[in-house]
Amino acid sequence: MFECPVCGRIEGGDVFSPFCPRGHGPLFAARRPSLRDAARRIRSGASPLERYADFLPLEGPVLGISLGEGNTPLVKLEKLGRRLGGPALFAKNEAQNPTGSFKDRGTVVAVHMARALGYRRIGTVSTGNMAASTAAYGSRAGLETFVLLKDSTPESSLRAAAIHAPRLIRVRGDYGRLFHRSLVIGKDLEIYFMNSTDPFRLEGYKVTGFEIFAGLGDRIPDYLFLPVSSGGHLLGLLRAFEDLREEGLAADIPIFVGVQASGCAPIVRAFEAGRETVRPWETVRTAAHAISNPAPPAGDAVLRMIREHKGILIHVSDEEMLRAQRGLAEEEGLFCQLESAAALAGFLKLKDSGIIPPDGDAVLVLTGSGLKTPPSPKSMPLDVHDVGLDDLAKGLRGLV
Amino acid sequence: MFECPVCGRIEGGDVFSPFCPRGHGPLFAARRPSLRDAARRIRSGASPLERYADFLPLEGPVLGISLGEGNTPLVKLEKLGRRLGGPALFAKNEAQNPTGSFKDRGTVVAVHMARALGYRRIGTVSTGNMAASTAAYGSRAGLETFVLLKDSTPESSLRAAAIHAPRLIRVRGDYGRLFHRSLVIGKDLEIYFMNSTDPFRLEGYKVTGFEIFAGLGDRIPDYLFLPVSSGGHLLGLLRAFEDLREEGLAADIPIFVGVQASGCAPIVRAFEAGRETVRPWETVRTAAHAISNPAPPAGDAVLRMIREHKGILIHVSDEEMLRAQRGLAEEEGLFCQLESAAALAGFLKLKDSGIIPPDGDAVLVLTGSGLKTPPSPKSMPLDVHDVGLDDLAKGLRGLV
Repeated sequence: MFECPVCGRIEGGDVFSPFCPRGHGPLFAARRPSLRDAARRIRSGASPLERYADFLPLEGPVLGISLGEGNTPLVKLEKLGRRLGGPALFAKNEAQNPTGSFKDRGTVVAVHMARALGYRRIGTVSTGNMAASTAAYGSRAGLETFVLLKDSTPESSLRAAAIHAPRLIRVRGDYGRLFHRSLVIGKDLEIYFMNSTDPFRLEGYKVTGFEIFAGLGDRIPDYLFLPVSSGGHLLGLLRAFEDLREEGLAADIPIFVGVQASGCAPIVRAFEAGRETVRPWETVRTAAHAISNPAPPAGDAVLRMIREHKGILIHVSDEEMLRAQRGLAEEEGLFCQLESAAALAGFLKLKDSGIIPPDGDAVLVLTGSGLKTPPSPKSMPLDVHDVGLDDLAKGLRGLV
Repeated sequence: MFECPVCGRIEGGDVFSPFCPRGHGPLFAARRPSLRDAARRIRSGASPLERYADFLPLEGPVLGISLGEGNTPLVKLEKLGRRLGGPALFAKNEAQNPTGSFKDRGTVVAVHMARALGYRRIGTVSTGNMAASTAAYGSRAGLETFVLLKDSTPESSLRAAAIHAPRLIRVRGDYGRLFHRSLVIGKDLEIYFMNSTDPFRLEGYKVTGFEIFAGLGDRIPDYLFLPVSSGGHLLGLLRAFEDLREEGLAADIPIFVGVQASGCAPIVRAFEAGRETVRPWETVRTAAHAISNPAPPAGDAVLRMIREHKGILIHVSDEEMLRAQRGLAEEEGLFCQLESAAALAGFLKLKDSGIIPPDGDAVLVLTGSGLKTPPSPKSMPLDVHDVGLDDLAKGLRGLV
């Protein structure tokens, strides 16, 4: 069922042990045996899961639990690109998924597999986007859903998950340990915990890569920027382009640029130090909560794969993310999460350092909707003019 | 440029006088003369504005300002439909538009026309969804954008618009008068106010109707439920099905069911009283702010067209909307705005009264994302279990 990108096929694995026993990090779903000898093809169909079925480990139709995830726009950022004078810029807007983030692409595949494998209970460990996504698809599929939350998760950010009526459990203790502990307990209680690096979840993320390829006219971009927290999203996207290359559909793989927050950048730190393993980040200091995993479970695998594919890992400050978030909103009409804006902030940083050539193109993966965590009054003071209806003409005249 | 559905073509109109001079309500964009003698066809293309170009008044390509609006999922509500034992139920999820509501479909067309007609300034009158949508597309198109707000609009609901840096003007005075006053002042100051019943905005809403038709396999649904506030959305959707019938693509028009909040239902009141004109609602008493327009500018036109097409207008209580909102989230994984849930609440009400036959199908138009106004702690108390990491196994065991 599973394979390690280093060791190959793993015998006898289950969804509760989704890591390589030899320490190579998260397992992937094994490619479907029936397709090993036949070329995998991109098919036609309205649903991305139909179009890319050859590349996914799914059994049977998934449309019954789909909420219409994927098919997100690839938006050309003409004005921003022109102003910056660099490569052509595109945003892959994952905010337009059913629960407002990229997580839905992975969740639909993992929930489908939960049903295919006979599980009646699912769960996840999350502080936000993943909780809402897993709770939504759990409801849709009629599965009992358990959401384990960081002790410090504010109630306000639980509401988008709570509306789907999952079991919400707030857990005191180390968040990194909670990730692995959930899998052990899940095996015992038959709760399939589809956490951030779940193999089937990663398969769902591949579809984003395929859609970017299709959106550019069956071409890979030169650069692909995305925020990195646990590392699962990056691994899934990389795997998509490996698949395309393997089938001869693309000759190369884009240069991946993974972006972390300066206040929690454990993978970048290891990358810059030339280490092969990621050490936990000590003190998290960033408002970008969705990318502040101090002990990323796919950290070592991200290091290995980024190096193998000549990718880049950098970090950006909260101030840079905030500026990028506002730039996307003010110039291009896109309101993404602060964390998602790390992609543009990373692009700006690399461009300023002269690493990115002015021709070619770059895709920014905007991972989630700004509606989830609107800027606070402090970070974005409101400029509102007050006027009476009878003075409206005068008031407007003064502003034009 | 414009036509009245009663009088026919209007000579010499402009975007600042988008109402029939003989009192028949909002004008529509006139059908393109070149197409009057040739059948309009549904074309192929990834963008809905390309596919339905024959049915839209657009000049030139709009892809430069598109944010990827439309192409929203038509989600089959299998579980809910089965439980209710009625007709097949579908949700057209407009929450997956770029700014999280159906408004984007109208805004992209109106903003395109603003540019085509040479305007450099646009504006709107809004308390929420429309403000964010117009501000986003205004930024994208590089136009100066003016958002006129109700005096009582809370700062928190301005943030989704403010991020795009429009001019925000809070106006003291009657909201109904503000709508019409903005058009007069707009003409003087060359600010194209694309309000809720703007003719080009309505053209954009038509695309939702075309997509529903395509999503059902080139077939119309028996029933179409949607919330009604100003009335513009309903007029646009009805016009879409009129277009399809006129071209011989569909033989009939769905039964439209417009749903208002019991605490602000001026159009329903006139409908039930058999009147031809809508009188302003005196005291608004509903939490469904997005559908609480006490003096709907398209009210009379909605009355006329609903009667002409044998449609229905009903009202539902806040409690019924809240229950429907939770039902959609708990059973089908869809988190919509309270106002959008009026569509399901209306369906339940009609079904209970025995008006809807058990066969056939019904489409609910979910107009906006629940992320915009998450339920308050009061309307949705959180049920969170607290546990230490070491007691997690025991805690979970007690819950399964």
